[in-house]
Amino acid sequence: MDQNLIEKVMKQVTEELGVKEEKAKESCTENKSIGMTEFVGTSMGDTIGLVIASVDSMLVDTMKLGKYRSIGIIGGRTGAGPQIWAVDEAVKATNTEIISVELPRDTKGGAGHGSLIYIGADDVSDARRAVEIALQAIPKYFGDVYGNEAGHLEFQYTARASYCLEKALGAPLGKAFGMTCAGPAAIGTVLADIAVKAANVEVVGYSSPSNGTSFSNEIILTFTGDSGAVRQAVKAAISAGKKMLGALGDEPKPTTTPYI
Amino acid sequence: MDQNLIEKVMKQVTEELGVKEEKAKESCTENKSIGMTEFVGTSMGDTIGLVIASVDSMLVDTMKLGKYRSIGIIGGRTGAGPQIWAVDEAVKATNTEIISVELPRDTKGGAGHGSLIYIGADDVSDARRAVEIALQAIPKYFGDVYGNEAGHLEFQYTARASYCLEKALGAPLGKAFGMTCAGPAAIGTVLADIAVKAANVEVVGYSSPSNGTSFSNEIILTFTGDSGAVRQAVKAAISAGKKMLGALGDEPKPTTTPYI
Amino acid sequence: MDQNLIEKVMKQVTEELGVKEEKAKESCTENKSIGMTEFVGTSMGDTIGLVIASVDSMLVDTMKLGKYRSIGIIGGRTGAGPQIWAVDEAVKATNTEIISVELPRDTKGGAGHGSLIYIGADDVSDARRAVEIALQAIPKYFGDVYGNEAGHLEFQYTARASYCLEKALGAPLGKAFGMTCAGPAAIGTVLADIAVKAANVEVVGYSSPSNGTSFSNEIILTFTGDSGAVRQAVKAAISAGKKMLGALGDEPKPTTTPYI
Repeated sequence: MDQNLIEKVMKQVTEELGVKEEKAKESCTENKSIGMTEFVGTSMGDTIGLVIASVDSMLVDTMKLGKYRSIGIIGGRTGAGPQIWAVDEAVKATNTEIISVELPRDTKGGAGHGSLIYIGADDVSDARRAVEIALQAIPKYFGDVYGNEAGHLEFQYTARASYCLEKALGAPLGKAFGMTCAGPAAIGTVLADIAVKAANVEVVGYSSPSNGTSFSNEIILTFTGDSGAVRQAVKAAISAGKKMLGALGDEPKPTTTPYI
Repeated sequence: MDQNLIEKVMKQVTEELGVKEEKAKESCTENKSIGMTEFVGTSMGDTIGLVIASVDSMLVDTMKLGKYRSIGIIGGRTGAGPQIWAVDEAVKATNTEIISVELPRDTKGGAGHGSLIYIGADDVSDARRAVEIALQAIPKYFGDVYGNEAGHLEFQYTARASYCLEKALGAPLGKAFGMTCAGPAAIGTVLADIAVKAANVEVVGYSSPSNGTSFSNEIILTFTGDSGAVRQAVKAAISAGKKMLGALGDEPKPTTTPYI
Repeated sequence: MDQNLIEKVMKQVTEELGVKEEKAKESCTENKSIGMTEFVGTSMGDTIGLVIASVDSMLVDTMKLGKYRSIGIIGGRTGAGPQIWAVDEAVKATNTEIISVELPRDTKGGAGHGSLIYIGADDVSDARRAVEIALQAIPKYFGDVYGNEAGHLEFQYTARASYCLEKALGAPLGKAFGMTCAGPAAIGTVLADIAVKAANVEVVGYSSPSNGTSFSNEIILTFTGDSGAVRQAVKAAISAGKKMLGALGDEPKPTTTPYI
């Protein structure tokens, strides 16, 4: 009877405190209709996928869309890496082009980024397809994003970078490309050093709070090289990152299933 | 008796977890004295209203106050639109001038802004009156700010823009002026397109995470035109915004009572 | 028996809601080994202290390390003042030099900063010693950091500024140096005025959301002068700051034990 009561109280406490159950959304492109042709779906990290079939002519220059009138839009509160990597897959698979990638200072109070990616297409069905592919791929790229109450770690890898990674992070097209990232930024500094020492890779980019991160609390290192070397560099950083972030709090947990 | 116990437990749980009841503050200029001549009052969005009768000469240039020594100050953690619109009312009604408007990246972990507005006056009583009017007007302009756990939507409208809207957002003086804004930014992109398609309006400004938003996760569109057209453009965006943000979480709720 | 039940429920509620007891960490350089030579320890504000004995040559220019290969790293999620003041002590006491100080927009959803400080040394043992001293000093400098649910106040003072304060905040070497800071920024404006009126001090720096604060919601004033005057200026601001921040919420509490 006590147990019964405890459950009753728990239910009421939870409701009154407005605590939401955070459901693990492994595959979460929700196709619930909201009655808008612009809506494609949602994914992890409060990511929403949208399309505009024909952007109003008054906004084409303002939004710097170039030659495109049909655009796909991927935007999230939490994360930039997963969204960028997922859109990179999407442009490989569709007849689309990256228009712009912006990195808000966000993550809902966390140390990192949100994201806003515009995808251009001659035909809105291509833009929509790209958005659908990206939404589906996002959970995979949250696989090597680890977090605890003190911060986060992010690791990404691809054997063959495409146009979104080129646009967003300067990746050389068609080559293997990897990333280490951590917040608080101090951890990212050591991860950068560990990654480049672990394998024969070439540094592509290095971003710190005051340069290239929209003032987020991160150090981001990107690098290229042979696919084996890039993967090895990333993998070496993963275990070190988990130890350092773990020293500030609980054991860092991956957001979904690690893929690297 | 069970109910009795549940309430008792709720009380203790709430206290021990440090959960505060968020009281809806419809009209919240608190005039509680804190024993400082600088203090005027507070309002929604953790907004505080202050005055300095005569800023120390060492700081006049540093703070870029121009010819003014008496200043009113409106600053909030959450929101920039409501504060800017409210101060716009205040300068219309008083013998004051806007010195500066700054937009911190804030909102207590949310996607958007805080605000810091300096109001200049030859006489401190004018500055104080402007601050009082602004504090009282802020809750009204939170009326069309909608939120849920995933982000926020903001809509503002005035039939006649004044000096604060001119200074902060480039509004043409004396003309109708409207704004659509959403975070995550992707939603704001679609709202911008819907607004300009809904009525014959002219775009004044467009801000994105990397340009004009202090890296917040928002797209902000501002526009002018006939007052009927501006209002129509804003209204068209409201229902679409609620649908899109609602796809990421609960039904977005207005902060106070919608006025548009 | 009711009490018994309440405790039982509290325990379960707390566990299920994932609420962590925030232990006051007065002295919190944890020397728990994590099996990495780079790890030195942790401190308040989710601050981690790390060293790299010999940064990979590929990163020396990228990280702008100048002549140094051995670096100490202090990085925190919450706070920049305490870390900067603590590292200032550390460089006084060791054979090290400040390489860079960066201020992310962070504090875990709060109004202010995080920090990332690189310390250079010819010998890694000097870098490690500097990091150890800084980690131990950080809790002291959180002593005059006050907070409540609406924002924070920060006050710092030193009788003799050293190289970290010079690098980070332009302090004149060897002279007394003080700081007032508050978020929401509006409170910081009034504190700045109160500080310079309270004693014969000279303004060194003034930062606002759009200038020098990484868009955080703060006004930061720094000043120099006779040590008595600097201290008096800081002390005058403390009581005023507590009143103003207190008007927006609960009575602001110091993070550790005030030292000014």
